[in-house]
Amino acid sequence: MASVLIREAKEGDCGNILRLIRELAEYEKLSDQVKISEEGPCVVGYGLYYFIYSTWKGRNIYLEDIYVKPEYRGQGIGSKIIKKVAEVALDKGCSQFRLAVLDWNKGAMDLYKTLGAQDLTEAEGWHCFRFEGEAMRELAGK
Amino acid sequence: MASVLIREAKEGDCGNILRLIRELAEYEKLSDQVKISEEGPCVVGYGLYYFIYSTWKGRNIYLEDIYVKPEYRGQGIGSKIIKKVAEVALDKGCSQFRLAVLDWNKGAMDLYKTLGAQDLTEAEGWHCFRFEGEAMRELAGK
Repeated sequence: MASVLIREAKEGDCGNILRLIRELAEYEKLSDQVKISEEGPCVVGYGLYYFIYSTWKGRNIYLEDIYVKPEYRGQGIGSKIIKKVAEVALDKGCSQFRLAVLDWNKGAMDLYKTLGAQDLTEAEGWHCFRFEGEAMRELAGK
Repeated sequence: MASVLIREAKEGDCGNILRLIRELAEYEKLSDQVKISEEGPCVVGYGLYYFIYSTWKGRNIYLEDIYVKPEYRGQGIGSKIIKKVAEVALDKGCSQFRLAVLDWNKGAMDLYKTLGAQDLTEAEGWHCFRFEGEAMRELAGK
């Protein structure tokens, strides 16, 4: 198990985090979907790994992204991050946290299951839907 | 198309909204999962329908629940709600919004697709995962 400090991101971490976001997108074969806006996301972690989450008091945390650089994998950093998210979620009064994972990413799926997560798509048939860009503007009449 | 006013919920709407949450859970065959905490969720809508969302500025909106009472279906209220969410998302500077739907709920899936959503589980293989209760406390060592 690596000796790892998990801390909140600072402004100076932005460059590193953006590089990691692009690395993850490449790994997920979704590089064409990376669009960095000026409104920085809320990020925890830096340099070797990162994770991003959105919260909603009293209901749940939605874990947006979790990424560990390939050369630092297999040292338990992913588990530490998930544990930290569980801590943050409980501290905020959340009763659950959710994330989405690609079905070919067996390593991640196995890790989450080992740590106690339920695959809701497999167990209950939940599908993830997304509205974006043109569709949103059309809906909003903008 | 029904004449419908979509507005933010007020404290006095809580009783109605809780009844709708229970109705939806029954429809989704998930009644055993309804736990109401004292920390009220952030709710928009009332009486005939409701929807609940969490936001994260500059990234996305996650649409938690959307529900229209059976006797008010087929009047375009679902579409109006989705349009309102698109408006709110754009106003908040979000680039997308997401939701999850059960695979046997063909009516909802068809509606979202017609309105321009992409089924990410079908198209890219995304699975929804959830950590809750005991698993979270064990992870957090609490």
